[in-house]
Amino acid sequence: MAMDLYWASGSPFSWRVLLTLEIKRVPYEPHLIQFSKQENRSPAFLQMNPRAQVPLLRDGDAIVYESVAIMAYLERKHPDPPLFGRTPAETGLIWRFVCEELSYLDQPAEAYILPLYENRAEEKAADVRAALPLIQKELARLEQALTGREWLVGDRISAADIAVYPMLKSLERAATKPQGVSFDLGVLPLRDRYPALGRWTARIEALPGYERTYPPHWRAA
Amino acid sequence: MAMDLYWASGSPFSWRVLLTLEIKRVPYEPHLIQFSKQENRSPAFLQMNPRAQVPLLRDGDAIVYESVAIMAYLERKHPDPPLFGRTPAETGLIWRFVCEELSYLDQPAEAYILPLYENRAEEKAADVRAALPLIQKELARLEQALTGREWLVGDRISAADIAVYPMLKSLERAATKPQGVSFDLGVLPLRDRYPALGRWTARIEALPGYERTYPPHWRAA
Repeated sequence: MAMDLYWASGSPFSWRVLLTLEIKRVPYEPHLIQFSKQENRSPAFLQMNPRAQVPLLRDGDAIVYESVAIMAYLERKHPDPPLFGRTPAETGLIWRFVCEELSYLDQPAEAYILPLYENRAEEKAADVRAALPLIQKELARLEQALTGREWLVGDRISAADIAVYPMLKSLERAATKPQGVSFDLGVLPLRDRYPALGRWTARIEALPGYERTYPPHWRAA
Repeated sequence: MAMDLYWASGSPFSWRVLLTLEIKRVPYEPHLIQFSKQENRSPAFLQMNPRAQVPLLRDGDAIVYESVAIMAYLERKHPDPPLFGRTPAETGLIWRFVCEELSYLDQPAEAYILPLYENRAEEKAADVRAALPLIQKELARLEQALTGREWLVGDRISAADIAVYPMLKSLERAATKPQGVSFDLGVLPLRDRYPALGRWTARIEALPGYERTYPPHWRAA
């Protein structure tokens, strides 16, 4: 029986899991959750995740949520190809990048992205401005880590790349919104501002299965 | 050759790694880093971790930082006893608790703790007050998860318990400071406010090796 993945279009957290499933070639049944219809607040969904968040993976009796926890679950269940390292040193480095994403980039990125998506950037201007230097610091660090390298760790894609990529794309997209331009995150155009990150995004976008992970409503817009 | 652990007394992040090393019975050479002497900003330390943070583990050529990344490294290098699950379902659940700690509790907890430790709680009163309900929500969730259970996942200690415990102890300690009392986080006394969490902390404190992990300057105070 295929796993059930509950996800939302454009959610960077969902995107991490979609990329993991595609790269590991694990069959899954996608269930698109529409926040606009409060589908994440249905009694059946809240029973699975009281935080009302996606992504959520149901695999038989196992229910896993939090994107990185789902990635670790999939690694344990489907170890090949390994995304969390082939040696202890790789494992430590990959988890370092994943933890840095969770601890230093996810929250400032959301503090920038959400007000722009919700047209509340004026009202939240202080929060948006406070997030800018934190985001820029992390992007500079990633640019440096990728300079002269194809992937963040080792010689192939890993969970480090997968944890970072969707948030970078969400930042890039938010920066193109009219209010985003006025706040100037300094990421546009990405390939000029952060050339190593730009080449790395192109590398991810050439992976087999990538197209199936791209947020459908971004295409429509 | 024993691993080198760079740590700071009272750092909840360092404490996670100390507990992991003791529970796995991995020999290590502790190097106490004193922030008051800026030892985390020496050129030699910044060379190892440009973020100037502890904990940091050096194991031969491998350098790992970010507490949870070090825990994952140690699991890979010394799998026994396993702290990240004996089955995929346990692994998913453990990582869910770890990710929830990183994404929802670490930052509000620090927004509460640091101003109290630094005697800046008046100045930072708005941030401290904003953190209170976020912390309380996570503690209520943990209390519920531990009700009727000895450990967060499975029938023995795991990385889920180890990720949470030091931050809970730091919150409890900050709440005893005079300014902490005036903000009323609602955790004191822990065994009355959160009885399941109270019993669980006693269980951790009875583990062999626990005493070696206790922040030395907390004892002196």
